[in-house]
Amino acid sequence: MNADLKLYQSNGSPNSRRVRIFLAEKGITVTQVPIDLGAREQFADAYAAINPRRVVPTLVLEDGTAIGEVPAIMRYLDEAFPETPLLGSTSIEKALIQMWERRMELEGFAPVMETVRNRAAGLKDRAIAGPHGYAQIPALVDRGMARVRDFYADLEARLGEQPFVAGSAFSAADITAFVTIDFATNALQFGIPDTDVAILRWYEALTTRESFSA
Amino acid sequence: MNADLKLYQSNGSPNSRRVRIFLAEKGITVTQVPIDLGAREQFADAYAAINPRRVVPTLVLEDGTAIGEVPAIMRYLDEAFPETPLLGSTSIEKALIQMWERRMELEGFAPVMETVRNRAAGLKDRAIAGPHGYAQIPALVDRGMARVRDFYADLEARLGEQPFVAGSAFSAADITAFVTIDFATNALQFGIPDTDVAILRWYEALTTRESFSA
Repeated sequence: MNADLKLYQSNGSPNSRRVRIFLAEKGITVTQVPIDLGAREQFADAYAAINPRRVVPTLVLEDGTAIGEVPAIMRYLDEAFPETPLLGSTSIEKALIQMWERRMELEGFAPVMETVRNRAAGLKDRAIAGPHGYAQIPALVDRGMARVRDFYADLEARLGEQPFVAGSAFSAADITAFVTIDFATNALQFGIPDTDVAILRWYEALTTRESFSA
Repeated sequence: MNADLKLYQSNGSPNSRRVRIFLAEKGITVTQVPIDLGAREQFADAYAAINPRRVVPTLVLEDGTAIGEVPAIMRYLDEAFPETPLLGSTSIEKALIQMWERRMELEGFAPVMETVRNRAAGLKDRAIAGPHGYAQIPALVDRGMARVRDFYADLEARLGEQPFVAGSAFSAADITAFVTIDFATNALQFGIPDTDVAILRWYEALTTRESFSA
């Protein structure tokens, strides 16, 4: 399906990747507009006009509406293209998938991001993404690693009970968890612990999906 | 409207208040089950079985389904009781309200919470809500206050352009912003700056709604 949508994104951005996989799973093709984070293009006036928070990704609709924040972009796509729902079909499914997707973000994705941003030499006064500069706090690096350890332990318990993060079916919660793990592996050299057999089984199965190369 | 729902909550919890106001705006009456955070009742086995993250609030449905995380609870209520939608009616409205509600949370509510939890004497090893204990980091208190200042400045700019946080209509984003401000005022003694005339005008108007005493 070709939609008249533009996704402002960066190939190296894990938040962008959450949306790219979501689109691929739904079979929606959009126009990708690259934003060069290395060249600080997200702070240029042209991009700030589209996303005042100056973060990627942003989805821009045909009428010019700009949608920022990954869960809001996912929400739009699942509402406007209801085939292959990734956020659930019934009221209960929608609530539980949103709950689990959020937990993966708050307990996994956000701690990995916080650790990376508080230790990267190039982000000294950019410890939080967005329009405001905040100095790094070194103590957040150790705490972040502890939180990632707890994330793996909790996810192992969950996937020992259910085949997918939100329960019996694949959903957006799996996408966020998977991107979190690749991000932790690549940016923190903190991959899935060998003993986490349930996570390893689930991860292997997801890598066979074509969308996960997006 | 009387729904056969139970809300496990605490009167002093700002996250619980977000849901109480949401319910009142929609005119839904639920059974409230108080959880005594002062007595650490959220860590008791009975509550952990309902919400493994051990945080309030949790919405429990007639069939026993337990929904945690405020935005997920709001989602369920707006789907199951579509009258008086607070998360939008069209795909675009739903996405933009979710985006703005999330920004109020990430840029306002979360920094206030982080500041409170990292300085309260009674929360030394409980700097993050949830099942895992993390030590306080004093540097987060100063940074948190700076973030709350930036939140007020950004909200003043937004409400100078639009009557409500998400645009022309009242929505869940206003509830989260309002609860954030009361929380900052009461817990950090950081109320709306006198010069923020747009926020003051909006805040005054919201206090006249009956739901905001919930």
